[in-house]
Amino acid sequence: MPVSAADIALAHRLAAAAGAVIRPYFRREHGAEVKDDASPVTAADREAEAAMRRLLDAERSGDGVIGEEYGEKPGVTGRQWVLDPIDGTRSFTVGRAIFGTLIALLEDGWPVLGIIDQPVQRERWLGVAGHPTLFNGTPARTRACVAVEGAIVATTSPHLFAAGDVAHYMALIAAASKGAPAQGPVYGGDCYNYGLLASGHLDIVCESGLKLHDFAALVPVVEGAGGRMCDWNGDPLTAASEGHVLAIGDPARTDDVLEALRDVPHDH
Amino acid sequence: MPVSAADIALAHRLAAAAGAVIRPYFRREHGAEVKDDASPVTAADREAEAAMRRLLDAERSGDGVIGEEYGEKPGVTGRQWVLDPIDGTRSFTVGRAIFGTLIALLEDGWPVLGIIDQPVQRERWLGVAGHPTLFNGTPARTRACVAVEGAIVATTSPHLFAAGDVAHYMALIAAASKGAPAQGPVYGGDCYNYGLLASGHLDIVCESGLKLHDFAALVPVVEGAGGRMCDWNGDPLTAASEGHVLAIGDPARTDDVLEALRDVPHDH
Repeated sequence: MPVSAADIALAHRLAAAAGAVIRPYFRREHGAEVKDDASPVTAADREAEAAMRRLLDAERSGDGVIGEEYGEKPGVTGRQWVLDPIDGTRSFTVGRAIFGTLIALLEDGWPVLGIIDQPVQRERWLGVAGHPTLFNGTPARTRACVAVEGAIVATTSPHLFAAGDVAHYMALIAAASKGAPAQGPVYGGDCYNYGLLASGHLDIVCESGLKLHDFAALVPVVEGAGGRMCDWNGDPLTAASEGHVLAIGDPARTDDVLEALRDVPHDH
Repeated sequence: MPVSAADIALAHRLAAAAGAVIRPYFRREHGAEVKDDASPVTAADREAEAAMRRLLDAERSGDGVIGEEYGEKPGVTGRQWVLDPIDGTRSFTVGRAIFGTLIALLEDGWPVLGIIDQPVQRERWLGVAGHPTLFNGTPARTRACVAVEGAIVATTSPHLFAAGDVAHYMALIAAASKGAPAQGPVYGGDCYNYGLLASGHLDIVCESGLKLHDFAALVPVVEGAGGRMCDWNGDPLTAASEGHVLAIGDPARTDDVLEALRDVPHDH
């Protein structure tokens, strides 16, 4: 079943419902606490996801729902909505409006619709398989990138890479900054970096440890803007990708990026 | 000569003039290039500083001016305006509205007025020696912090620390994240992090390599909000501080922060 106008309208309403919950908490008492996996969560995360789930229960009771805060509800339609109410809770809790609400629609496990919504700055990227990505209603395009050397690389934090991954990440940023060593990568930003890549403001996002709810919505947004989303081997992202995520604005650079990631000095 | 209402009004007009130049360049062609010191600069940086200098030449021709892009103009009044048109050029060039225009007024070398202005989100912190810091006209206060353990630490990038400094920075973030290891520091943000600290959204900012134009404006903003600005020895910031800057929201934590910075494992 292809994505319908009704699906898109519902996705916009989900984003609006989450944003209406989140905005009053921004830079106010947000009840931050630390979850069992040591990641932060707030009342805003929980209430925003609950608001989206209420809409889905009312209007798409047969669809499955996978949410960061309230887990999985099985469905019967082969469709699943994947929700991350606040991706970038850390930015949210310190008052930086570069976090986002992520909403994805999966068909047979594959993301066919994605939204990245920044509710404070009221910025929204919408990606639908087979259609151009829209930023606040206007087509967004990734930019050309002639070489990894000089490319602008973004990632949320170097500390989020597992021990075995960090050397690969460092190899990529060494290759990118070869021409301009003090440039270095862009840090912070979570999902917002993928939106900026879709709009042609940066070239590569490299992360590890991402879960389905972190990356599902990014795929239609980045690919509908002309970019490429894949794992660190160049394969399509699946729940089995172990969270190794690459977004490449110019797909012509894919092999170069994969090679730079592999180019780790060996211990002898 | 104490800071007058006319000084404050002029500082606001300087910020407004810079913002009017910067906004149309945001997420547009901004002519980024790399300076001799490898830091990025854009047409927006240069034109925004030029606009501020025109105002100062017209209205305060006797005051000195120190600007990031156009250097120092000596004055005869004992007063100097210190300008950084875009602090966080990297964030600016990738389309993140968490950079700022910095404007400071020095009296006998000491910053008595500071502005951090975010022109896209239209957010402005104003600090004046002896007065409460204002955020968009409303008093801003830092928050209490009961211990370094659990404190939220921000810095622009771990790669910006010199070789001899990075171990001290890592010691501080290890102490801060002891209770919640996955929290980690907040990255990205440049001057914007100091504004967020002044408004009570985070606890500590730790950086090195900052120049006078990077930190002068921050001092009245942070201290007028109840925080403390000092170097890594706890001494007041001067041009001789070698850019080791600490902002501490709760001054009662100063000794604890300094101790955490010193607590570097020794090689034997």
